Amino acid sequence: MFLTRTEYDRGVNTFSPEGRLFQVEYAIEAIKLGSTAIGLKTKEGVVLAVEKRITSPLLEPSSVEKIMEIDEHIGCAMSGLIADARTLVEHARVETQNHRFSYGEPMTVESTTQALCDLALRFGEGDEESMSRPFGVSLLIAGHDENGPSLYYTDPSGTFWQCNAKAIGSGSEGADSSLQEQYNKDITLQEAETIALSILKQVMEEKVTPNNVDIAKVAPTYHLYSPSEVEAVISRL
Amino acid sequence: MFLTRTEYDRGVNTFSPEGRLFQVEYAIEAIKLGSTAIGLKTKEGVVLAVEKRITSPLLEPSSVEKIMEIDEHIGCAMSGLIADARTLVEHARVETQNHRFSYGEPMTVESTTQALCDLALRFGEGDEESMSRPFGVSLLIAGHDENGPSLYYTDPSGTFWQCNAKAIGSGSEGADSSLQEQYNKDITLQEAETIALSILKQVMEEKVTPNNVDIAKVAPTYHLYSPSEVEAVISRL
Amino acid sequence: MFLTRTEYDRGVNTFSPEGRLFQVEYAIEAIKLGSTAIGLKTKEGVVLAVEKRITSPLLEPSSVEKIMEIDEHIGCAMSGLIADARTLVEHARVETQNHRFSYGEPMTVESTTQALCDLALRFGEGDEESMSRPFGVSLLIAGHDENGPSLYYTDPSGTFWQCNAKAIGSGSEGADSSLQEQYNKDITLQEAETIALSILKQVMEEKVTPNNVDIAKVAPTYHLYSPSEVEAVISRL
Amino acid sequence: MFLTRTEYDRGVNTFSPEGRLFQVEYAIEAIKLGSTAIGLKTKEGVVLAVEKRITSPLLEPSSVEKIMEIDEHIGCAMSGLIADARTLVEHARVETQNHRFSYGEPMTVESTTQALCDLALRFGEGDEESMSRPFGVSLLIAGHDENGPSLYYTDPSGTFWQCNAKAIGSGSEGADSSLQEQYNKDITLQEAETIALSILKQVMEEKVTPNNVDIAKVAPTYHLYSPSEVEAVISRL
Amino acid sequence: MFLTRTEYDRGVNTFSPEGRLFQVEYAIEAIKLGSTAIGLKTKEGVVLAVEKRITSPLLEPSSVEKIMEIDEHIGCAMSGLIADARTLVEHARVETQNHRFSYGEPMTVESTTQALCDLALRFGEGDEESMSRPFGVSLLIAGHDENGPSLYYTDPSGTFWQCNAKAIGSGSEGADSSLQEQYNKDITLQEAETIALSILKQVMEEKVTPNNVDIAKVAPTYHLYSPSEVEAVISRL
Amino acid sequence: MFLTRTEYDRGVNTFSPEGRLFQVEYAIEAIKLGSTAIGLKTKEGVVLAVEKRITSPLLEPSSVEKIMEIDEHIGCAMSGLIADARTLVEHARVETQNHRFSYGEPMTVESTTQALCDLALRFGEGDEESMSRPFGVSLLIAGHDENGPSLYYTDPSGTFWQCNAKAIGSGSEGADSSLQEQYNKDITLQEAETIALSILKQVMEEKVTPNNVDIAKVAPTYHLYSPSEVEAVISRL
Amino acid sequence: MFLTRTEYDRGVNTFSPEGRLFQVEYAIEAIKLGSTAIGLKTKEGVVLAVEKRITSPLLEPSSVEKIMEIDEHIGCAMSGLIADARTLVEHARVETQNHRFSYGEPMTVESTTQALCDLALRFGEGDEESMSRPFGVSLLIAGHDENGPSLYYTDPSGTFWQCNAKAIGSGSEGADSSLQEQYNKDITLQEAETIALSILKQVMEEKVTPNNVDIAKVAPTYHLYSPSEVEAVISRL
Repeated sequence: MFLTRTEYDRGVNTFSPEGRLFQVEYAIEAIKLGSTAIGLKTKEGVVLAVEKRITSPLLEPSSVEKIMEIDEHIGCAMSGLIADARTLVEHARVETQNHRFSYGEPMTVESTTQALCDLALRFGEGDEESMSRPFGVSLLIAGHDENGPSLYYTDPSGTFWQCNAKAIGSGSEGADSSLQEQYNKDITLQEAETIALSILKQVMEEKVTPNNVDIAKVAPTYHLYSPSEVEAVISRL
Repeated sequence: MFLTRTEYDRGVNTFSPEGRLFQVEYAIEAIKLGSTAIGLKTKEGVVLAVEKRITSPLLEPSSVEKIMEIDEHIGCAMSGLIADARTLVEHARVETQNHRFSYGEPMTVESTTQALCDLALRFGEGDEESMSRPFGVSLLIAGHDENGPSLYYTDPSGTFWQCNAKAIGSGSEGADSSLQEQYNKDITLQEAETIALSILKQVMEEKVTPNNVDIAKVAPTYHLYSPSEVEAVISRL
Repeated sequence: MFLTRTEYDRGVNTFSPEGRLFQVEYAIEAIKLGSTAIGLKTKEGVVLAVEKRITSPLLEPSSVEKIMEIDEHIGCAMSGLIADARTLVEHARVETQNHRFSYGEPMTVESTTQALCDLALRFGEGDEESMSRPFGVSLLIAGHDENGPSLYYTDPSGTFWQCNAKAIGSGSEGADSSLQEQYNKDITLQEAETIALSILKQVMEEKVTPNNVDIAKVAPTYHLYSPSEVEAVISRL
Repeated sequence: MFLTRTEYDRGVNTFSPEGRLFQVEYAIEAIKLGSTAIGLKTKEGVVLAVEKRITSPLLEPSSVEKIMEIDEHIGCAMSGLIADARTLVEHARVETQNHRFSYGEPMTVESTTQALCDLALRFGEGDEESMSRPFGVSLLIAGHDENGPSLYYTDPSGTFWQCNAKAIGSGSEGADSSLQEQYNKDITLQEAETIALSILKQVMEEKVTPNNVDIAKVAPTYHLYSPSEVEAVISRL
Repeated sequence: MFLTRTEYDRGVNTFSPEGRLFQVEYAIEAIKLGSTAIGLKTKEGVVLAVEKRITSPLLEPSSVEKIMEIDEHIGCAMSGLIADARTLVEHARVETQNHRFSYGEPMTVESTTQALCDLALRFGEGDEESMSRPFGVSLLIAGHDENGPSLYYTDPSGTFWQCNAKAIGSGSEGADSSLQEQYNKDITLQEAETIALSILKQVMEEKVTPNNVDIAKVAPTYHLYSPSEVEAVISRL
Repeated sequence: MFLTRTEYDRGVNTFSPEGRLFQVEYAIEAIKLGSTAIGLKTKEGVVLAVEKRITSPLLEPSSVEKIMEIDEHIGCAMSGLIADARTLVEHARVETQNHRFSYGEPMTVESTTQALCDLALRFGEGDEESMSRPFGVSLLIAGHDENGPSLYYTDPSGTFWQCNAKAIGSGSEGADSSLQEQYNKDITLQEAETIALSILKQVMEEKVTPNNVDIAKVAPTYHLYSPSEVEAVISRL
Repeated sequence: MFLTRTEYDRGVNTFSPEGRLFQVEYAIEAIKLGSTAIGLKTKEGVVLAVEKRITSPLLEPSSVEKIMEIDEHIGCAMSGLIADARTLVEHARVETQNHRFSYGEPMTVESTTQALCDLALRFGEGDEESMSRPFGVSLLIAGHDENGPSLYYTDPSGTFWQCNAKAIGSGSEGADSSLQEQYNKDITLQEAETIALSILKQVMEEKVTPNNVDIAKVAPTYHLYSPSEVEAVISRL
């Protein structure tokens, strides 16, 4: 059984007899190996929180970027292959700047997400910017536009969904259950920060410190928390 | 037997000794894993209804789009890989807009369907817009043009048929039988709504709510039902 | 034996040790799975008749097109993959229109057939219009030009023959024997209609109705029979 | 032994350990499956005669073209894949016309043959006109130029030889022996016709009729015999 | 188990079922075979030290370059395939010169590192400058810009991290432990030199001499130590 | 052992673990199947002699060209695939004509040989004129330039050597031994003719006649012997 | 073990699980089959000496070129595939001439070596001048520029080292040991000649003669020794 499976995933973009695209499924596995990231939408804005795996005390924690700004009204958290995420974010940054330049207004969060997924979908097609394999990364895209705050979740197949709250990465299964218990649409931004960090704390193996988590919000503009701001949230747990 | 079959589907577009194209057949399998969609043609217009699989209460139901507008007189319901469907719909939107621009009139429903299928057929050909594999999606295309209302059904091979009523997706087999029993050409649009939703109800595992189904009509223009309009149809069951 | 055969057909356009091109032979198998089509040449013109497989009563019979017009003096019946046939017919339509535009006269039936076969032959060559595999379709091309009526038969290898009468598709073997018994060069067009439909009746599993057969003639211009015209032929059986 | 052979012919243009090119050898096998063709050179001109396999009485014999005109002073008979031969002949026609246009004189028979073989040799090279596999056809090229009549024989490797008489196709082995017995340089054109047809008669399984053989001569211009001219030769046997 | 692994790494850029990219992992193995390199960041500047494997006394030690200047404010130490490193360094040199030319200011150390990693990430994509396989080299990039001194570490996946201290190559495991024990942010540049060399001494099999180690600093400009300067550091051990 | 060898020669231009290029070695095998050719350099000029395999008495011996003129001061004899040799010779003819046109003087024999070998070396590189496999032919290139007469020998690897005397093809082993015994630098051209033909006679299975051998000399211009000139040499044996 | 190794070297430029590039290692094997070459640097200049394998007494020894001039101040000795070496040398000749033309001064020996290695590194990349496999050749590059005499050694991986003395080819192991014993930096050029030839004599199976060795020096310009100059060195042994 396993042997025949291997026959289908050599071609990066080939259906198996059951109608599955194995390379996409394997890329999704790459994300299950990644660090956990959590997003929550509130009426005030969206909160993103990520676990940072600092493998050595000699590493500069701030250089492990798992949350990035796309435009001043959009940020994203990632899980999976960081280098792949950088390519996608760089693409989105160009798209949003082009949109501002062409139309004199910010790109909507959904259009930005769609642009990212268009690139992700076309792996194996030999286009200039596309990859020869699926992008091994999931993103939580937090933004704020004329429709208010929104949170999107993308996967390596190029599909996206709008969510109220979502966890990705190795701890996503447990984190998603906790989110379903604790989340409701009326929580404040501060409550969202607390929920995000308390759930991260459960799935992380070590103590939560300003060094091994990052928090950002889009409310209505992107802001990455300073170590002391992170410390303040930790102290509320 | 199974082993030799694997020899033929590595090449995405190769005939097997029995004259079959396995990659197309496997793509059709992908659709059998998809959510169910139903279309019915009446003299007043066409009704489309789809099951939406809301895997988590934290997902925004309205962001799970399984029915999309192509032009103001054409809409479509889909089953299979959503990202593939988006590429096809985007292609059709450009085609219909180009037609309006070039000829000053809406594109006919059949021409629009043919344009979609031309793209679907050319997988593996290395063209700019085409994919390296078949599109893993079936569409029900509902439209209204100078010939009145019409409903088309497309599959991954790039073939299309005109139908009076049709179901696609995991529940299509049972749904098609029900349609043959309940459909006749003289039903009203309201009766079509009721039939579509009652059949969806049979094939879905959970209770039907405005959150997990979408309904749209083209009569003669495309309209996606609001949650309260869906609720009204549900209450008639 | 079978295993070694598989070695040769992975390359779409490679000779086997016996000098065979397996992909072409497998494409010919695809046609043996197709619905039956029959053509007969008379002095008055050519008759084409096809079986239409209407898999569901909800399908619109007129949308199952197995006979198509190429130019006003040429039509064709097909068996095999319908989407492939559409590509060939579309190519032929462009060629015949170009010819009319460039030379101010209709293209001959043989030149049209040759143009179709040139495209079919070049599979696997990476040309713009050509396919990466053989076209899985056979055509019966009926036409009328300065040389009078003519009937051509093409297969997936890009070869063509001129015939007086010919059957293709799953029932072709039995139908060809019947044609040899019943056909002579002096039959009238009406007799040709009757022979075509009586033979189709033998090879079809269900009752012949205006819904499940199509008839067309080129005498000297292309005409697809209306349901009532088909009914008239049926009533003569 | 056979298994290892298969390793070498997947690449269409790869040497085996014994220094052989299997794809070319397999293409030569394709010709051994073909119908028999014979050519004889006399001082008056060259005679070509071919067997035509009329698989059904409903086929139009004249549409089974196994002898074709290249230019008014050159014709050729073929054995193997007819569609491949058409591509080569079409190429030669363009070359000879270009030569007439550029130099105001007919192309020599040897240059025409060389041009055909250049195209045949370059299979697998990805050029615009070349094929991805060897051309599965042998040609007997009969011509008449400033050096008098000449007969050339080409094979799928792109090699050519000048001959006095030559047979190709399934019956070539027996036909070549008969030619060696019966041919001498001083035979008349009429004697050449008789020899060609009497040898064809031996290798064909059915009775020779104007329907199942074709004869042509280049003496000094190309002429394809009418059925009555063929009948006249048959009556001399 | 091992056999199935081989199936996935033939395609240079394909996910395995566990979501891994084997070619990248194997390239990382190439680095584990390389000579050891160490970098330490101090407030005064960054120190780089490398082991040089002089396989023969007839080799000119100065021609074994394991530390290279990128720009006057950036240098790098390398471990792995030297020829690959040269390509990356050459690319970085062009980028930093272009930046100076376009903006009239030195490129920041992070932007230079990002430019190197962009090239490294795109292996297998067929771009002009990219390789068909991952670059088999890790770099320690030492620089000094408006943000003061910084040290970056890159790996074949195109990922990079900022570090305070880091070892790469065959002795990196032991060297990293020693660095964690001995390093703190307040050491002087001279102490950093001593630590670097004493750790190299532990992992090298032979006696440390000016012939088999190289030392460089960026404080704030790049300087490669002369043999006598290296001798001075050795004498402090 | 043999099986693993097959793994390396599928890629036309890949090293085996022992550092061998099998496709080149197999192409050399193709030459060992070829007819024998012999070259001898004398102070008066160079003599080339080849065996011609006339497989049928109906073949025109003069059309089996195994010795060809490149320029008026250079000729070559060949063994192996004739169609490949033609491509090389055609290339050399263009190069020598270009040289005459550009520099107003004949190309030297060594430069001509180098130009041939440059083309032969680049097989598998996808260049316009190069082949996808090695050229399966060896050449003996005889010429006369400002340095006097010279004889070169080329093989499929694109390597060439200057020789005083050399045999290639199926009988080369025996012929080379005979040459070493009989050749010395002071023989006359007439003696060289006699030696060449007497050695050919030993390795050929049939009687030597003007029909089955060709002789040419470059002394100082290229001249292919007429049948009577060949007869004269034969009579001297 | 051996079988799995074969999996990795089919792709010419793929890492094995241990981080090795087998095609490069196999190309290095090709050099171990080559003839021996030796280089020694002295203060007066550099000496190169090579073994020439004269396989037949009929071969012209001077046409077996194993030492070539690159520019008037640079020469190189080679071991491995001669045709590959010619391509590299030709590339270097163009580079050094371009340098002279652009900058009005000779190219340095290191830059010339780097240019050669850049080409060697990019095998398998599909560039215009690069090869689809590694170059199967090692070079000893002797030169003299503003930094005085220098000797470089390159291998198929595109890596180079500066040496005082170095041997390559089948006898390199023994020759390198002898060099380490006999070489010191203060030897004269004449002593270097004697050492080189006495070591060649040890590794060669036959008697050393002016026919089977070549000697060249760069002191400060390139000079290939005449047979009598070689004889003079031999007589000193």
